[in-house]
This record gives sequence, structure tokens and C-alpha cells, in this order.
Amino acid sequence: MVTIKDVAKEAEVSVATVSRVLNNQGYVGEDTRGKVEEAIRRLKYRPNNVARSLFKKKSKMIGFIVPDITNPYFPQLVRAVEDVTNKAEYTTFLCNSDEDIKKELMYIQKMQENHIDGVIIVSNTLQLHHLENLDLPIVALDRFFHKNIPSVTIDNYKEARKAVSYMIKIGCKSIAHIKGPDNIVNSVLRLKAYEDEMRECNLPAIICSGGYQFKESEKAMINLFKTNPGIDGVFAGNDVMAVGALKAANRLNLKVPEDLAIVGFDGIEWTETVSPEITTMVQPIYQMGKRAANMLLHLIDGKELEDMHVVFKTELTIRETTKA
Amino acid sequence: MVTIKDVAKEAEVSVATVSRVLNNQGYVGEDTRGKVEEAIRRLKYRPNNVARSLFKKKSKMIGFIVPDITNPYFPQLVRAVEDVTNKAEYTTFLCNSDEDIKKELMYIQKMQENHIDGVIIVSNTLQLHHLENLDLPIVALDRFFHKNIPSVTIDNYKEARKAVSYMIKIGCKSIAHIKGPDNIVNSVLRLKAYEDEMRECNLPAIICSGGYQFKESEKAMINLFKTNPGIDGVFAGNDVMAVGALKAANRLNLKVPEDLAIVGFDGIEWTETVSPEITTMVQPIYQMGKRAANMLLHLIDGKELEDMHVVFKTELTIRETTKA
Repeated sequence: MVTIKDVAKEAEVSVATVSRVLNNQGYVGEDTRGKVEEAIRRLKYRPNNVARSLFKKKSKMIGFIVPDITNPYFPQLVRAVEDVTNKAEYTTFLCNSDEDIKKELMYIQKMQENHIDGVIIVSNTLQLHHLENLDLPIVALDRFFHKNIPSVTIDNYKEARKAVSYMIKIGCKSIAHIKGPDNIVNSVLRLKAYEDEMRECNLPAIICSGGYQFKESEKAMINLFKTNPGIDGVFAGNDVMAVGALKAANRLNLKVPEDLAIVGFDGIEWTETVSPEITTMVQPIYQMGKRAANMLLHLIDGKELEDMHVVFKTELTIRETTKA
Repeated sequence: MVTIKDVAKEAEVSVATVSRVLNNQGYVGEDTRGKVEEAIRRLKYRPNNVARSLFKKKSKMIGFIVPDITNPYFPQLVRAVEDVTNKAEYTTFLCNSDEDIKKELMYIQKMQENHIDGVIIVSNTLQLHHLENLDLPIVALDRFFHKNIPSVTIDNYKEARKAVSYMIKIGCKSIAHIKGPDNIVNSVLRLKAYEDEMRECNLPAIICSGGYQFKESEKAMINLFKTNPGIDGVFAGNDVMAVGALKAANRLNLKVPEDLAIVGFDGIEWTETVSPEITTMVQPIYQMGKRAANMLLHLIDGKELEDMHVVFKTELTIRETTKA
């Protein structure tokens, strides 16, 4: 039987390089990739799962790096990943990175030392070069990472424009945006979508920062209403901040949706626990986690992915904070 | 220098048994413990951290097993544990057990295979015999486990009685209790406290089940109000269910706190995101996680604990769902 070692010898590269080509993982130069693919064809090499397991030290463990588990968007993702991987008899180790590159790199090092079989990452601080020496399947979740790294995301820009466009359609004349952190790509895309939609409709942009946090958003909105009493709509960069905006409206005795419309983003449970319930762009969070986990298991088994980059749709879910 | 091996030889037991006595971990019979302690005294043995590190294979990793990360009580605990362990250059691996003994045992096995240095566990399905062969420091968090296993908890029974007693004091005549799952010790203790307090005050107990879940609680409360329209107070077994009760009151157009008082338990952020904000028994969740992590690091370093069982106080925090 032709082995991965034969392919490496034939292509005059290391076994790790062949593995990277097979898994479509990490950086491989075009020339090298060509040589490996040619050797695979010439030798009629077929990756074999059993051989792969023997060759690699398998731990039946996968790693999942999330920024902050206290952000209520993430527990659902974690649930979904664990549900899928547990069924396949894998153990998921969850790591909290705090958007801190040092922590992320430390976790990745630990994972390598422990022969983890694959990693799901929510990050936009890691760069491709941090990962290219990892001979390990990786799937990026929630945030696009690099064209060479498979990903499961939504189209933040397009969906945020839909949200703002809906608010204009139902008659809001003065729509403010509470933006999230500037170092998070999804937050930046949602802000840009708001700015573009407002500009195209000749409406002024009114922006404040809520840091993706509930109390920070509540405070920011109270200040904003003081300086801009005419605001009749708020598009929040995530649901946590939308709940903060609703709280601010309550404190200021503004009626929602009569005096003020509120639209959030994400579709977390918080939007249904408050009264009135919040209109929001609902992401299929559980489905996204499930898909990413299935993709990772596919890669670990040495299979090809049908789609490298899966983009899920979000759904504008109209509840009680907006009124036609 | 006297080593742990000398102690084992002198006491005629295994090195693992000496280690269990030193760490005050796992089951050791009274006779055996006596022999080991006698040998330690006779040989004037002092545990040495460097020697311990050389003896044991250290990974600088700790494990943290929680039941369900989508329960909003747990993310704060996880945060606290990670903050402490990261400072000490440990990596925390979080595992979701789903109150499922099979999952818990699988995670513990994985941890052993990977030479994890210590474990924090939130569980009441695991039994002492599951852990006694683990030569590993363990701290039980949130739920008391066994007198031989160090723990960080609150006094659920006493604090829940305080909550019910407060509701009676402010004039509630017909107080219902939404209880949590019957297989979770904290939930059972809070229920018992409610029953005892009501009985002692000659008030009838009215109980329904909310499964520690928001929507389940909302539904249960709507049904309960139909059959018991006179209810003027709800003591919820946790905050998530208190938020469900508030939602039910909103749906039924009951004014809170005028028509209905609501008191929760835990002190999670949800109680502050809703309007009116919920009166609740606030646990120092972050402090508890921090303490458990510090205790575990102490044990890993071979130090003695000052207190084996730390019981934190909760604070009755009066907000807008109760009125004197």
C-alpha cells in the first residue's frame, strides 16, 4: 500500500507538508503543492483513515477557543460543538482567550503538546503565520480568518444593512447606532453597514460606543438621548447592547416602540426575556456551531470539505420593539 | 533528604497513598492515615515543591467541569477560575458535563491521560469512589461533594429561608415556589427551606416546577396563576426562573410588585437587564470561583488548606420586584 511517507519521498518534501496539502491546512507554497499533488496522482495515493490514526498520535480531543464565555452569544455555540463532538466520542476543551493574542498562543501551544486532533477558533487577532506550523485541522467560527482556513460565518455587512433598511422602511427618521469594539471585525462590519445605509438614504449618522456590554450600552444611550432627544430608532451592534438601550429607554420613560424603535443583532435568549421582546437579526447560532464541528470532524478524518467557507443567513425577527 | 518514597517504605504503603494523605485528597482508611502520619513524624519529612514537581508529571493545566455553560450562572464562575489560574500560568480546560455521569467520567479519564494537575468540579452525580483512585487535587465548587473533598459553596438552605422569611415580612400572604430539578442538591435544599418556612408560619405551600429554565418557568407560572389566582408572591429557585415568572406576570397583566412580589436566587446579570429589576439572593459568584481556584493552586503546590470547606454568604438584594 502506498503511504504518506512514499508520497513525501516522491515529492521530496516532509510528511508534514504532504499532510498540510491533504488537509488543505496551513501555508504551502504553490510550487510545493503542485509537486505533492503530482506525486499523489503518480502513486495513486488514497489517504486511509486507519493509517492516518496510526501515523498521527490521536487524542480524540478537540480544542475550542472563544473570546469570552460571559458574552451570552458563546454558550450556545459551545453547546452545539460539544453535542456534535461528543456523539463522535471526542472531548471538547474550551478555552477563553479574552481577545488576547498571548492567551490564544498559549492555548495553542498547550493543545499541540497534548496532541489535540483539531481546533475551532473564534478570533480575529490570530494571524495565518501563527497557525501555519500547526499540523492540525482548524475551522474558524463566527469570524472569517483567512481564505486558507475553512470558516462558518454570517454576512455581517449585508445582514446589518437589512436591519437598518427595515428601520427606515417602518418610518424611523433619526436612527442611532450603538457600536461594539473597534477591534472585532463583526462589530466593524455592522458599523460600516449602518453608515453606508444611512448615507445612501441621506440620513445623518449618530453613533455611540457600547463595547458589546449591557451596562456600558445603557449608560451610553442615556447620554446620547440627552444630546439627541429626537432619536426615534436605535440599531444596536449586538443584542446585549439592545437590551441596554431598552433599559435606558425605560429609565427615561420613553415608550418602546411608540417613541423609540429598537433592533438588535444575534438572536440570543436575552431578547426574549425582556419586555417588550426585542426585534433582532437572528443568527442560527446552534446550527453554525454544529456545522463547524462537523467540518472539523471531516477534516480530522482526512475527508475533503464540500464548502471551505459556509455563510449562514440571519433572519429579521420582528417582535415588540418595532411597529410597522 | 527524606523523600516521599522513604515515607511510603517506612509506612509500608504506596507512594500514591502517602500523596493522598499529604494532599488530604481521596479516600484513605483511618489506620493507613495514622501509619503515614506516624512515618512522616518519625522521618521528619517535609514535602518539597520542587521534588513534587519532579516526581509528578506536571502539565500546568487544570480541568473545570461544569454542568451546562448555557445556564447563565456558570460563565462568571469560569471567568473567575480562568483569571486566577492564568495569572499562575496555568491553562484551564472547561468541560460541560450536562449532569451526565458518563460524560463526567469520560472527562476525568481524559484529564488523567493528559496529566492534568488538578480539577474543579461542579457536580452532584459523581460519588467519592469515582475519584478515589485519582491522585489529583480536587475542589468541589457550588455543590458540596464529600467531607474529604475541599469545597466552596453557600448555605442554600439557610439563605433560601431568609428569602421566604423576607417575603412573609413584607406582607405576602400566598407565596408560590418555582422549584428547580429534583436531581440537583442546591435546588432540593432551596425547596426544603421554602416548605419549612411556610409550615412554621402556618402558610400553605404552592409548588410548581420550572426546571431551572426560563421558558419552562414562564409556562409553569401561567398555569399556576390560572389555578391559584390569589398568589401574591413568587420565590423562584433560581434567577432564570424568576425572570420567567416576571414574563408570565407581564403576559397576564399583573403589576409587579403591586399585585405580585418576585424574589430570585443567585444574582446573575439577567435580574438587572429586565424591568422591573428583580430582588434576589446575590451570591458572590466571582469571589467563589476565585477562592476555589486559589484553593486548587494551593493543593497543587502541596500546601495545606486553612479551611477545607468554605461557605460564602449571600446577600438579600432588594430591587424593584418587592415593595415593603
